[in-house]
Amino acid sequence: MSNDYVKMWKDLGLDIDAHDALLGVLGNAYTDIYLAQKNRPEGMDYFNFVMSEVHGLRIKELIDEKAQGRKIIGSYCVFVPEEIALAANATLIGLCSGADFAMEEVEKYLPRNTCALIKSAMGFKLGKVCPYLEASDMVVGENTCDGKKKAYESLGELMENLYVMDLPQMKSTQGRALLRAEYERFKDAVEALTGVKIISESLKSAIQTVNAKRSALHRLAKLRKADPAPISGLDALLANQVSFYDNPARFTESVNKICDELETRIAEKKGALPEKTPRIIVSGCPMAVPNWKFPWIVETSGGVIVGEESCVGERGCRNLTDDSGESVEQMMEAITDRYYKVDCAIFTPNQDRLNHITEMVEEYQADGVIHYGLQFCQPYLMESIPVEKALEEKDIPTLRIETDYGMEDVGQLKTRVEAFIEQLK
Amino acid sequence: MSNDYVKMWKDLGLDIDAHDALLGVLGNAYTDIYLAQKNRPEGMDYFNFVMSEVHGLRIKELIDEKAQGRKIIGSYCVFVPEEIALAANATLIGLCSGADFAMEEVEKYLPRNTCALIKSAMGFKLGKVCPYLEASDMVVGENTCDGKKKAYESLGELMENLYVMDLPQMKSTQGRALLRAEYERFKDAVEALTGVKIISESLKSAIQTVNAKRSALHRLAKLRKADPAPISGLDALLANQVSFYDNPARFTESVNKICDELETRIAEKKGALPEKTPRIIVSGCPMAVPNWKFPWIVETSGGVIVGEESCVGERGCRNLTDDSGESVEQMMEAITDRYYKVDCAIFTPNQDRLNHITEMVEEYQADGVIHYGLQFCQPYLMESIPVEKALEEKDIPTLRIETDYGMEDVGQLKTRVEAFIEQLK
Ligand code: SF4
Ligand code: SF4
Ligand code: SF4
Ligand code: SF4
Repeated sequence: MSNDYVKMWKDLGLDIDAHDALLGVLGNAYTDIYLAQKNRPEGMDYFNFVMSEVHGLRIKELIDEKAQGRKIIGSYCVFVPEEIALAANATLIGLCSGADFAMEEVEKYLPRNTCALIKSAMGFKLGKVCPYLEASDMVVGENTCDGKKKAYESLGELMENLYVMDLPQMKSTQGRALLRAEYERFKDAVEALTGVKIISESLKSAIQTVNAKRSALHRLAKLRKADPAPISGLDALLANQVSFYDNPARFTESVNKICDELETRIAEKKGALPEKTPRIIVSGCPMAVPNWKFPWIVETSGGVIVGEESCVGERGCRNLTDDSGESVEQMMEAITDRYYKVDCAIFTPNQDRLNHITEMVEEYQADGVIHYGLQFCQPYLMESIPVEKALEEKDIPTLRIETDYGMEDVGQLKTRVEAFIEQLK
Repeated sequence: MSNDYVKMWKDLGLDIDAHDALLGVLGNAYTDIYLAQKNRPEGMDYFNFVMSEVHGLRIKELIDEKAQGRKIIGSYCVFVPEEIALAANATLIGLCSGADFAMEEVEKYLPRNTCALIKSAMGFKLGKVCPYLEASDMVVGENTCDGKKKAYESLGELMENLYVMDLPQMKSTQGRALLRAEYERFKDAVEALTGVKIISESLKSAIQTVNAKRSALHRLAKLRKADPAPISGLDALLANQVSFYDNPARFTESVNKICDELETRIAEKKGALPEKTPRIIVSGCPMAVPNWKFPWIVETSGGVIVGEESCVGERGCRNLTDDSGESVEQMMEAITDRYYKVDCAIFTPNQDRLNHITEMVEEYQADGVIHYGLQFCQPYLMESIPVEKALEEKDIPTLRIETDYGMEDVGQLKTRVEAFIEQLK
């Protein structure tokens, strides 16, 4: 680890010992789970590098941006529009929350029965181990699930720069109006933060940048239709995870390069896993870095994941924003339209998500669906029951999993997943 | 049990055996918990009668009302305005959900990690044991917590007459506008159900009826300031519980009669429990009939409950609606203003609730606060942590309890409550 990095982390206020421990865990997990894979596309070298520098080079870039007056905005949800941040000359970073940290401290602020994602977000703050969080000039929370909504009240006591975005619970005229108004309020807040007024040119260019990133992810997704799957679910998940904090233009280019390579692999019938490996769609709660536990279980249990119906996956990236608007107003409407389609389980009813899961099964020729729910996540665990019913009515084999970030249940999960995959053969 | 009642229950589609079992449990609990109390006000005879006829006479009254063309509306939350129902010539009934029922069936529809209230609501439907639910021409769900919001999706599959009301999550301009619009939509729906157009006279009279009911409850509440407390917390809770399904005018009269008696008791220094009994405010999740477990524990462990910061308590009834408006429009605004103040933990931030708890401690000269949280209730369990912090900063002893409707934890709870009360002496 370069000394410059240690100084940078210290300057950010990180707890260096705790942070070392976290990096150690992260590095080991990456080696054991990612580098242990066979038949990876060469283009994944880029992501190996990104991950090896996840708290190093990328943070240095952000610090350099800050030195030049650019602002960093952290967020916990795909409802926070990157387009608006970029248009005001700010960088949007998805804060990951994929590992348990400082759990004893966390339970002073949150009930034990809180989902792992929320506990992790709190633990990263309390443990002072997330350089992205500490580098953020503004952190955006949102009223999605009860857990996050109430957790931001406590998190807000621990940071001065928490901004809370309200969200609707129903897709109604009022619901859309609320989202539109909240995006306007967010735009004002970002402009106030950066001192940069968003104009039609900057907003259009920001929309195009984000669209390009999402298009690259769509291209990657579509290539997973092939059998054998040219890329593992683990690697595709990683691309989605990195999309939340990498430089958008560089990320887009890297993903497109991988896609070129995958096209060649497909032509050569070369797969990350063998042909006829049972094909799984994983649907449910988002998996943030370094939460690779479940796809790792699936792909070491005889299956290959060919799609993620998740916010770190298609739910998060599937729609583009119409960039044809001429005025800021028109483009803000287009942004609202785009995000309004996100079919998070916090909405009621949420038929779009059910439809999308079925579409994904067809599109990616999946053999079955595994619903991944984090323990105590009411929205997704509750929705998993109608999801299972709807899929089984269509004779699509479905398995519901409830887990957390701990490793205690790996053996038991593996047994269930293996049995499920066996039945798909 | 009269044969007429059995026929009535059969006509409502109840499962007679299951219903008998429920009534048996209810009757025993009432005898063991309520009738076992000493020094009860005589006026509680009315509530003894109401409870003995809870599925009998009151249901017969509703069936008679229905025969005369009146509609019955069931609801699960204090955000559903009784004023609007009454003004359209309908009767609003709070559906209680205070006991476990048909739990095995319930877990096919809801995750195990769902709060007892929601499971109970589902169990009463699946078990066909609630005559109020089955007598309802319209059942109103609302987007409050994630648990209920998502549970209504499943509940809606089991009944044809479920209406879902959207609610805001923040008290903002947009939030109030949403509530106002939803109350207008509800008014339209109720008018469509009853065929009765709400006019200013009927709405004013409905507001006055509900105000009178709430004023009687306020009067009852204020009398609990006295030491010795003239009425037990159990009995005061029962009055609040019955307010959700009794005839409003008769209820008001009965509560006022009890209040007259309590005034005499206070003058005579006659208490339900002895003077200097440690005085407790219970704050948190609503307690629906027959969920008397926790107040029973407190009042058999050396304490007396002098106030409920709960929807079945002050949170639910504390504000009146301004009845001075002349037009329907003005009164709908007043109704919105009144309900908008309800400080449910689903809102963020929710400082009003914290303030109200502290006010109650002062007003009722309480010695401590017990926060009652249902297991898996994210909003209240999460909010209990800042509540505890805020109270302890003011040197108000606070105990946080997490429980459900089961009896397994009674011994353990009793030990904790006794130790807490001991420290208040
Ligand atoms: S699952 Fe819902 S709350 Fe979570 S990141 Fe996605 S949209 Fe946001
Ligand atoms: S996983 Fe579920 S409970 Fe956790 S933050 Fe996401 S929506 Fe909320
Ligand atoms: S606690 Fe909240 S959701 Fe429950 S009845 Fe009260 S207002 Fe409604
Ligand atoms: S007790 Fe909590 S989780 Fe249960 S219905 Fe009420 S607010 Fe929702």
